Amino acid sequence: MKKIINDPKDVVDEMVQGLVRSYPDYLKRIPETGVVYRSDLEKIKGKVGIVSGGGSGHEPTHAGFVGNGMLSAAVCGEVFTSPTPDQIFEAIKQVDSGAGVFLVIKNYSGDVMNFEMAQDMADMEDIKVKSIVVDDDIAVENSTYTQGRRGVAGTVFMHKVLGAAADQGASLDEIEELAQKILPNIKTIAVALSGATVPEVGKPGFTLADDEIEYGVGIHGEPGYRREKLQPSKALVEELVGKLNDEFKFEKGEKVAVLVNGMGATPLMEQYVFMNDVLNKLDELGLNVEFTKVGNLMTSLEMAGISLTIFRVNDDLVNNLNYATHTIGW
Amino acid sequence: MKKIINDPKDVVDEMVQGLVRSYPDYLKRIPETGVVYRSDLEKIKGKVGIVSGGGSGHEPTHAGFVGNGMLSAAVCGEVFTSPTPDQIFEAIKQVDSGAGVFLVIKNYSGDVMNFEMAQDMADMEDIKVKSIVVDDDIAVENSTYTQGRRGVAGTVFMHKVLGAAADQGASLDEIEELAQKILPNIKTIAVALSGATVPEVGKPGFTLADDEIEYGVGIHGEPGYRREKLQPSKALVEELVGKLNDEFKFEKGEKVAVLVNGMGATPLMEQYVFMNDVLNKLDELGLNVEFTKVGNLMTSLEMAGISLTIFRVNDDLVNNLNYATHTIGW
Repeated sequence: MKKIINDPKDVVDEMVQGLVRSYPDYLKRIPETGVVYRSDLEKIKGKVGIVSGGGSGHEPTHAGFVGNGMLSAAVCGEVFTSPTPDQIFEAIKQVDSGAGVFLVIKNYSGDVMNFEMAQDMADMEDIKVKSIVVDDDIAVENSTYTQGRRGVAGTVFMHKVLGAAADQGASLDEIEELAQKILPNIKTIAVALSGATVPEVGKPGFTLADDEIEYGVGIHGEPGYRREKLQPSKALVEELVGKLNDEFKFEKGEKVAVLVNGMGATPLMEQYVFMNDVLNKLDELGLNVEFTKVGNLMTSLEMAGISLTIFRVNDDLVNNLNYATHTIGW
Repeated sequence: MKKIINDPKDVVDEMVQGLVRSYPDYLKRIPETGVVYRSDLEKIKGKVGIVSGGGSGHEPTHAGFVGNGMLSAAVCGEVFTSPTPDQIFEAIKQVDSGAGVFLVIKNYSGDVMNFEMAQDMADMEDIKVKSIVVDDDIAVENSTYTQGRRGVAGTVFMHKVLGAAADQGASLDEIEELAQKILPNIKTIAVALSGATVPEVGKPGFTLADDEIEYGVGIHGEPGYRREKLQPSKALVEELVGKLNDEFKFEKGEKVAVLVNGMGATPLMEQYVFMNDVLNKLDELGLNVEFTKVGNLMTSLEMAGISLTIFRVNDDLVNNLNYATHTIGW
């Protein structure tokens, strides 16, 4: 294992420390926890707080999306491990100012269980909490750590849209309704070129031959649906857009937002080449691309690969995607 | 070679296409060139244009820093290859609105020669052009493609400070003076964990053993000054901050800005752990850290590694670093 770290067991603690020390204008930490919250928390007084989180190793997700117009707080678990209910509860208490708190949960059994327990703890203290479980990865049904579909990079679109709505004063019920409305319209699929190594494990979660790729790998290295020889970008796009279109069954003229997400070790150069091919393909399908984003937003440590998220949008949602935000990672 | 591309010879063209199609509100391209410029170019009317560029493969450098408060245009050469003088000249003409154009050149022989030729071409058309050659990498004197020291991640601080000054109406002479003043106060040093593969070459520029690192590697894989076994982050920080301090000879109470830059494949997690150790070390030296930035700003394709830039600042320079900017990459 070749990593710039100290003791593997201290990685998350030292990462969170480095993060809040680097960006004190953006982030504060609840001492001794993995909870980071907006430094300007007073600005959401009377508004719904938005909280997300999960295992670490997906940076800038989730802490990088804490700030005006996105998340109010993020809970950083150990690497690829759900944060504990008490830490999630601390985050809820920190950001509630009476209007309630909305939780964005990626669909992993550990996350779902722990966020629900935190929600119960909040209920007992009369804090209004609602939530959504994001399951945007269409690659496989059920997976190593998941019942149903996994939650992956499309979650960032959920953060952005709900964060914009909350900042504009939407109520907890309105945010829940919005989340449920957009959930089935956000879909993602990935391709991996190499695996990632969890520091405390010390070796890659999976390995691929020098000329081999795997379609549909999850953000913790969960198995996908097919391995084959490396293909050119255009062929990858055919496969991935094809799979997404099988789900969406798009008609000409529909409006979409697109996220090309690097998994960690894949250069921006390749992500832009891939996006260029995606846009050609979406043109061919007659879709109107209203919003585009390219970059390492939901990574899997040093995994090489890419994910493609398509989000069926209307003009209001595009406005939320373009809504001004002040975060490190968006 | 495992890359998400099509034909290696089309990589830069397809990348630039993907880039401007993804971010039409930020960037436009001069057709058939590697020149990208601000979509809102009318906003710099009467102001000095700032142009940078160089070989591609360092994304988001340089195109990602085109926008309000940073660069007016960037010239994308082939991978790790200087852009041609005529393309640089196109960029100069595109952004000149009478106040002149300032060129930020990284110190590589090809870049210096081609940017100077473009400057001569501009002189012949009576466009006022001045320039600075950035040589912030303290690792070695002279290098594979360089007389003197190499220009690396510290160049991004140069973009930011000069871009802010230009936006605030500084004259060409004032920008030149500012650039010369800050140049000796920006210093960088890197450590690499693995090499990068240029698409048209097809194999890594250098290789390291599984447990080996190299100090002082350049952003094109140019040799550094020592190889040894992988060290913990704290030990790397001792080495790199020590080397920088040997140059700066800091006294207690001096003000600095710090950039921890990922070389491509190194997760943000590791970059934050490393920054945490850097900040501890700078505390120990009694320095006042006034500005911090962490992320993949000047990469070397999929190289794993990190560079550390320290910039000796005063309050005005901190204001320029914090000056509002509208780019994809900052």
